[in-house]
Amino acid sequence: MNAGESLRLLREQRPLVHQITNYVVMNETANATLAVGALPVMAHAREEVEEMAGIASALVLNIGTLSPHWVDAMLAAGTVANERGVPVVLDPVGAGATRYRTETAQRILDSVSVAVLRGNAGEIATLVGVAAEVRGVESIDGGGDAKGLAREAARTLGLVAAVTGPVDFVSDGDRTVAVANGHPLLGSITGTGCMASALTGCFLAVAGSPLAAAAEALVAFGVAGEDAAVGAQGPGSFHVNLYDALAALDPETLDERAQLS
Amino acid sequence: MNAGESLRLLREQRPLVHQITNYVVMNETANATLAVGALPVMAHAREEVEEMAGIASALVLNIGTLSPHWVDAMLAAGTVANERGVPVVLDPVGAGATRYRTETAQRILDSVSVAVLRGNAGEIATLVGVAAEVRGVESIDGGGDAKGLAREAARTLGLVAAVTGPVDFVSDGDRTVAVANGHPLLGSITGTGCMASALTGCFLAVAGSPLAAAAEALVAFGVAGEDAAVGAQGPGSFHVNLYDALAALDPETLDERAQLS
Amino acid sequence: MNAGESLRLLREQRPLVHQITNYVVMNETANATLAVGALPVMAHAREEVEEMAGIASALVLNIGTLSPHWVDAMLAAGTVANERGVPVVLDPVGAGATRYRTETAQRILDSVSVAVLRGNAGEIATLVGVAAEVRGVESIDGGGDAKGLAREAARTLGLVAAVTGPVDFVSDGDRTVAVANGHPLLGSITGTGCMASALTGCFLAVAGSPLAAAAEALVAFGVAGEDAAVGAQGPGSFHVNLYDALAALDPETLDERAQLS
Repeated sequence: MNAGESLRLLREQRPLVHQITNYVVMNETANATLAVGALPVMAHAREEVEEMAGIASALVLNIGTLSPHWVDAMLAAGTVANERGVPVVLDPVGAGATRYRTETAQRILDSVSVAVLRGNAGEIATLVGVAAEVRGVESIDGGGDAKGLAREAARTLGLVAAVTGPVDFVSDGDRTVAVANGHPLLGSITGTGCMASALTGCFLAVAGSPLAAAAEALVAFGVAGEDAAVGAQGPGSFHVNLYDALAALDPETLDERAQLS
Repeated sequence: MNAGESLRLLREQRPLVHQITNYVVMNETANATLAVGALPVMAHAREEVEEMAGIASALVLNIGTLSPHWVDAMLAAGTVANERGVPVVLDPVGAGATRYRTETAQRILDSVSVAVLRGNAGEIATLVGVAAEVRGVESIDGGGDAKGLAREAARTLGLVAAVTGPVDFVSDGDRTVAVANGHPLLGSITGTGCMASALTGCFLAVAGSPLAAAAEALVAFGVAGEDAAVGAQGPGSFHVNLYDALAALDPETLDERAQLS
Repeated sequence: MNAGESLRLLREQRPLVHQITNYVVMNETANATLAVGALPVMAHAREEVEEMAGIASALVLNIGTLSPHWVDAMLAAGTVANERGVPVVLDPVGAGATRYRTETAQRILDSVSVAVLRGNAGEIATLVGVAAEVRGVESIDGGGDAKGLAREAARTLGLVAAVTGPVDFVSDGDRTVAVANGHPLLGSITGTGCMASALTGCFLAVAGSPLAAAAEALVAFGVAGEDAAVGAQGPGSFHVNLYDALAALDPETLDERAQLS
């Protein structure tokens, strides 16, 4: 794991990260992708997603404002990504809140080989069949054993699971890494989970493994959150600072600042 | 009417506010909802809106970028909300600008029991059959008798009408309250009307009556606008300050600062 | 060409600019439109686009997140705009990246009389049949002869072509104007190309010719970019400053600051 080196590669290679994501955060995840150094592209039409996914370096699927046409596009893009060896991130926004969200997330997991599943505790618990309280798209679940949940999700679903919260846990089923970077203000604005998923896509394009990519992305995002909180007067100024902080991330010091365990 | 107490309850209970709204402002209304203390959820698929509306504490319908599938979802969600006693806000964005907008707003009013109708003078006038000049989604109408308009809309349509402008008027047909809080910079960015509607949804979840909810939401939003204007260099910095100001609203002083009459 | 006078007229007349654009930037282009002094309206339903385009002073078509229903709406709106003499801007986002984008941009150009085509070098080169490297929605093409490309696009397609980049080139086939205003930070956030297209729509409503409108819009946007960079700490604060700077543009000094050649 070497977050600084991955960040350096990201900025050098500027990988294209195809995102089929929700209406609420499209601008935000595109700007976070640009700020960290990669190139975002948003495309969801059935007519072009296969071609776009095929030329991308990573594909991010996010069901935050899902509807049937978009789900079809996600499945088609995911299939091509798998064929071409393009790694896929799934963000199961609101799984557990409605049957449609839960079933759609499961359907994507059944049809597409997902490299990293990034969600909050409630969403991930839902997908491994553990009872969870999800209110809308917020996980209310106090946390419980998030570390064990990440490991279980990784084993059950056969992927890298990233369960984010006050401390994030990333597991490939064998190794489980805790990332303690971040700041409470990240919970005060919408879309920070989605940004974490987008950044995971960016790091997947350059990192040594899906486990490394997910952990490195969360280190980078958490450190940026810490920097963004400095001088923030509330959620609005924190939000602005977050893009400045992502763009200012220093590959030389990123690993020193990582709070991994 | 007690805006401070409602704000305190909002932050304590964190009600889920389901919003079927327009593409332009989704991020903005979600962040305003979070900043004031509630939990937003955006969901528009016919496959899930009934389930989502059924678990929400309020439902906000906003036709700003309407299309047939979205209108169907609004009607379905509104019907379930009515059955479950979940209060509904309607923001008839651009009613009067095109026949489709006017007819859709009327159709929702005919099919769904709306607790609060929040719009500008041109939109509300259109819906009560008064001639109005609407250009796109902006009300050009100088104002005229906005107070009388609010009362007439409330009586004719059988709901609480909130006609916003330099001074806002909220009426249930019997009582009409004027809210003079706010700042001209609120008119310099897109989506502030939509944010006012989203906040009305938040307050509906906790306030004593729809009239109180609408007036309290406009007091809170107006006071935040006044605070956001301090030090703003223009619409961009005002927009950022607005979220900081919403999050910083003080329940203890909110009613002292209310300019009600 | 008189950018200051057009800006003055814009703020006086507040023309309605109908935009059928992509999900990523809708809030951004609406706010840029408001900041410069015009009125934006976003409407994409087949049920209303003809009526809305018919009452607008300019129509902006942007294929950034295209899908069949939206393309149909663009064609319908464009046709009505042509009948009513409402000038049309086309932003062929990502032409060259996928066949669907290239073919859709060509289809719009075949069906609608476009006053100004605004894109990056890769997009415009694709549409005049010159080989170009486009990655997602970013032009990677080093530039080459952007001036010649603008002229060739104008002649081949029979419109005003605005090829934006470090230096922008605007041509009607006879005259080609270079606009050297701007700042590298404009490339650090998503949607600045889309904002340039939206502002071109604003200026089309008041300028003396499509050539003047496109060049004046790029002068105004470039000067605002220069002002926004002052004190910016990165892409987040630059983005905020950009709206403040657009709103603060001074008609009296705009032409002195224009770097035209």
